[in-house]
Amino acid sequence: MKAITPIQESDLEFDYGTFDAPAFAAQTLANWQTLASIIDHTLLHPEATRSQIEQLCDEAERYRFACAMVNPVWASTAVNALSGSGVPVGAVLGFPFGASLVSTLRHEAAALARLGVRELDMAIPIGLLKSGDHHALQHSIHAVAGVAHHHGTLLKVILETSLLKMEEKLRAAEIAIQAGADFLRTSTGFASGGATAADVALMRGVAGARCGVKAAGGIRTLAEVHALLDAGANRIGASASVAILRELGAE
Amino acid sequence: MKAITPIQESDLEFDYGTFDAPAFAAQTLANWQTLASIIDHTLLHPEATRSQIEQLCDEAERYRFACAMVNPVWASTAVNALSGSGVPVGAVLGFPFGASLVSTLRHEAAALARLGVRELDMAIPIGLLKSGDHHALQHSIHAVAGVAHHHGTLLKVILETSLLKMEEKLRAAEIAIQAGADFLRTSTGFASGGATAADVALMRGVAGARCGVKAAGGIRTLAEVHALLDAGANRIGASASVAILRELGAE
Repeated sequence: MKAITPIQESDLEFDYGTFDAPAFAAQTLANWQTLASIIDHTLLHPEATRSQIEQLCDEAERYRFACAMVNPVWASTAVNALSGSGVPVGAVLGFPFGASLVSTLRHEAAALARLGVRELDMAIPIGLLKSGDHHALQHSIHAVAGVAHHHGTLLKVILETSLLKMEEKLRAAEIAIQAGADFLRTSTGFASGGATAADVALMRGVAGARCGVKAAGGIRTLAEVHALLDAGANRIGASASVAILRELGAE
Repeated sequence: MKAITPIQESDLEFDYGTFDAPAFAAQTLANWQTLASIIDHTLLHPEATRSQIEQLCDEAERYRFACAMVNPVWASTAVNALSGSGVPVGAVLGFPFGASLVSTLRHEAAALARLGVRELDMAIPIGLLKSGDHHALQHSIHAVAGVAHHHGTLLKVILETSLLKMEEKLRAAEIAIQAGADFLRTSTGFASGGATAADVALMRGVAGARCGVKAAGGIRTLAEVHALLDAGANRIGASASVAILRELGAE
C-alpha cells in the first residue's frame, strides 16, 4: 500500500489532467440513450421487494442504463434477471454506514463479484475519517479495491459529503483516489443530504482526470442532472431515472 | 433447520410460558443500578469518532450497563476499552438495512465473536419478508444464530417494526424465534420510527417466555423506559442512557 501523500496546494490546482465537463455534458445530453448509458438505475430502500427489483432490472435492460444498482441481498436476483442482456449489475458494500469490518467488506466484495456483480459502491467509515485515522481509512478502501480489481469489478467510493466538512471532503477524496477508487460518489442517498453541484465540483477538482465522479442522492429531474454534469460528474445514480429519461424524450 | 410453522391462532394466546412484565419492571426500576443492568449503552451514528466510542465505554463501565453497543468498525476499540471490566461489548450486523449476503453476515458474526464481542444485533432483510420469502428470511437468521451460538454470543434480531404491517410483525417475530433469536429487537433507530409500547406488547405476545424483547430507537426518558418495560421489554437500547439513569438518581 502506498503511503498517504498529504494534500498539497498543488493538488487543488487540477494538475491531474483535465476532465472536459462541458463537452461530456453536451455529448451525454444529446439524447436519452446517451444519458441512460451513464445512469446507475438504483433501488436501495431496505423494504424493496423482489418484484420491484425485477422491475428495476427490466427497466435497466429496456433503457440500457449503465447498471442496475441493488443491495447485496438482491444481487443474484438481479444478475439472473439481466443475464445475457449486457447490462451489468452493481451492488453496494457496507451500506449505508460504512462501519463494517474490513475483512467483511473484502469477503462481501469477493462474494458479489463471484455472483456476477460488475460494479461495487462502497460506503466509507466516516468515523475513522473524523477521528483523523487516515491510514485506517485508506487501508479499508485499498483492501476492497484489491479484491474488486482482482475480479475486474469497478469500485466507487461513497464519501457521504453531507456529513463532512470541507477539509474532510478534500481529504477523503484524495485518500480514496490513492487507495484505488475508480469513481468518487457523493452520497448514499440515506443521509441528511444528497448530491450537490458544489460537492461534485470539489471532487472533480481533486480527481482531475484520475477517476470518475458519480453524483447520487436525491436526483429527480433532468435539470438537476444537467447541473451535476456541468459540475464534473460522469456518472449519475438515481431511482427516478426513467422519469428523467422521459424529460429527454424516452417513452 | 426446522421447517417454518405457520402462525396459529394459538400462537397469539401467549401459551409459550408467561413473562411477568409488571414484576420485571418493578424490580428493574428499583434503583438506577438495576436499570443500568438491562440497558445497552449505544452509539451507532456512522460519524461517531474514536473518542466518542471511548467515552461510551467509560460510561458503560462506570454505570455497569448491560453492554456497550457499537458498529463493527469500533468493535476492537470497545473490546480493548472494556477489557477486564466485566462489561460486554455488543455490535450490530448488516446494519441498518439488513440487506447483506447471508455469507457476509456469518463471516462478520464470526469475526466479531473472535474479537471478543458478546452480543450481536442483526437487522433482518425486510425485503425478503415483504416478498413473502419466509424461508429465505428464516435461513438468514438461522445461519447467523448458528455462528453466534457456536461462539456463545447472544443474537438479537431487529424487526424494524416501523416499516412493517401488523401481519409482517407477527410473522417476522415468529420466524426469528424459530430461527434461534435470543431477543427480538424493535428498531434500528435509523428508520422512520422507533420503539413503541404497542410493538413491544405484540412482540412479547408472540414470544411469551421463549426469548427476550429489546426496545430500541428514540428512547430518551425514564417515563418511556417505564412504559416499554410495562409492555414487556426486558432489554432497552439507548444513547440517552446516562440521562435516563440520572432521572433515577445516578450521578
